[in-house]
Amino acid sequence: MSYAVGVDIGGSKIAAGLVDGRRVLKKKVVKTPKTRKALLKAILDSIDYVNSSKSRGIGIGVAGSVDKDGNWLRSHNIPCVKNIPLKRIVQRRFRKKVEVNNDANCFALEEAVMGAGKNKRCVFGLILGTGTGGGIVIDRKLHNGANFLAGEVGMIGYPDNIEKYCSGRFIKNLARKYRMKPDPYLISEMAGKGHKKARKIYMEFGRNVGYLLSIIINVMNPDMIILGGGVSNNFVFFSSAMMKSMKKHLFYKETHKTALAQEQAAELS
Amino acid sequence: MSYAVGVDIGGSKIAAGLVDGRRVLKKKVVKTPKTRKALLKAILDSIDYVNSSKSRGIGIGVAGSVDKDGNWLRSHNIPCVKNIPLKRIVQRRFRKKVEVNNDANCFALEEAVMGAGKNKRCVFGLILGTGTGGGIVIDRKLHNGANFLAGEVGMIGYPDNIEKYCSGRFIKNLARKYRMKPDPYLISEMAGKGHKKARKIYMEFGRNVGYLLSIIINVMNPDMIILGGGVSNNFVFFSSAMMKSMKKHLFYKETHKTALAQEQAAELS
Repeated sequence: MSYAVGVDIGGSKIAAGLVDGRRVLKKKVVKTPKTRKALLKAILDSIDYVNSSKSRGIGIGVAGSVDKDGNWLRSHNIPCVKNIPLKRIVQRRFRKKVEVNNDANCFALEEAVMGAGKNKRCVFGLILGTGTGGGIVIDRKLHNGANFLAGEVGMIGYPDNIEKYCSGRFIKNLARKYRMKPDPYLISEMAGKGHKKARKIYMEFGRNVGYLLSIIINVMNPDMIILGGGVSNNFVFFSSAMMKSMKKHLFYKETHKTALAQEQAAELS
Repeated sequence: MSYAVGVDIGGSKIAAGLVDGRRVLKKKVVKTPKTRKALLKAILDSIDYVNSSKSRGIGIGVAGSVDKDGNWLRSHNIPCVKNIPLKRIVQRRFRKKVEVNNDANCFALEEAVMGAGKNKRCVFGLILGTGTGGGIVIDRKLHNGANFLAGEVGMIGYPDNIEKYCSGRFIKNLARKYRMKPDPYLISEMAGKGHKKARKIYMEFGRNVGYLLSIIINVMNPDMIILGGGVSNNFVFFSSAMMKSMKKHLFYKETHKTALAQEQAAELS
């Protein structure tokens, strides 16, 4: 059996786990600290806690952008991040193979290699969460792009960033407009009970996501698009509006059949 | 020396050539016939004319869409095309290796393998001609996509097809609006002489293309984008508006430096 350490560093929490490719054998979840020093200490301590002499390497997914050398350049949700040589720091400390990449890329790779996109040549993993991000996997390999920014479709102009219309933020903003409490869990619950405005919020959201899917398909023509991230759990409320809008924007009928799946990233917490 | 036959089948002409990878040794150009029977005859006759016993294979680029088996499904500009098993027909006749692909894909592959994008990992070839098309090459291999439709960015909704705003058609339509003769050569000539409205047409065109480039970069983050097609020859008139608009729509500063080139497809005629 082959073991590895996986770390997910997000805006609210750091989750580290010792995994064998199927199960999480040991795990540690801590709140994401606000200062650079405390952040690095929390990351290293979490890895140290779950690490084992049997683990072959350490894979780290971070919110925000990285470069090809594993430097964590910045993160919208963790302002203290600025050019942290994370790969080098972790490598020096633990003396193992270390990979650092964007969390959406990690999600896409996981789904393409051993998840819903297992037998597909080109998989696009789209995260619909607090923000909107994505990753591209072709022939089981990540397509990182020239600046490690491939798949960052949330930044498409619509005319301002399309992320604003395809993320949890959109749900909250529309709720405020409808004079509802901007609480995603509440809105989801209300939609489940058939509340009209809550349903409408998800339909508008679905229309926007459908348009974004059509762009991805028109550029890449992937075999499969896999949705992840917290908001994607409300798939049942937005999928029909999403599909309708996607097809409306796809000129080639063949592409209407692009496989779609909704999967959550392997949860460490 | 290794020889091959290359064929470019467009809406107005069929051009076939015997090539050695650098030069065209023998060539044949005929008008594209309007009926299926005459079209096939013209294609086979042209290949026959330039073919040599030394040629190792036949590569055919067609206007329109193909599938993975080399069937020519359809073409906007050649209405008689409907599911022509072109690869099989040519293979049976000449008993050589035959490849059939979309012309924009051929352009991208040529530029990525031996043209402006020679040392780049991910190249996007964008054709700005009568229509707008494209092709994606990663590690010197075409990324055809699930339905052989990767790179067909002209079909992106803007809200109707962005092709309408990034092709020769846009230039002509705007000329009509400005009460100018909708002749692309004339408009280009007038722009060269500093004619205000002609310049304005290219600037508006450049803004649209810049937006399209930003979408391509936000999805793929290619190392290089290479522009081809007739309209791209007016690069000098639209490039500054294009770059300005592209950068305006790119959130990540790193991507502003995406390499750009303007190249013509190897001309057989």
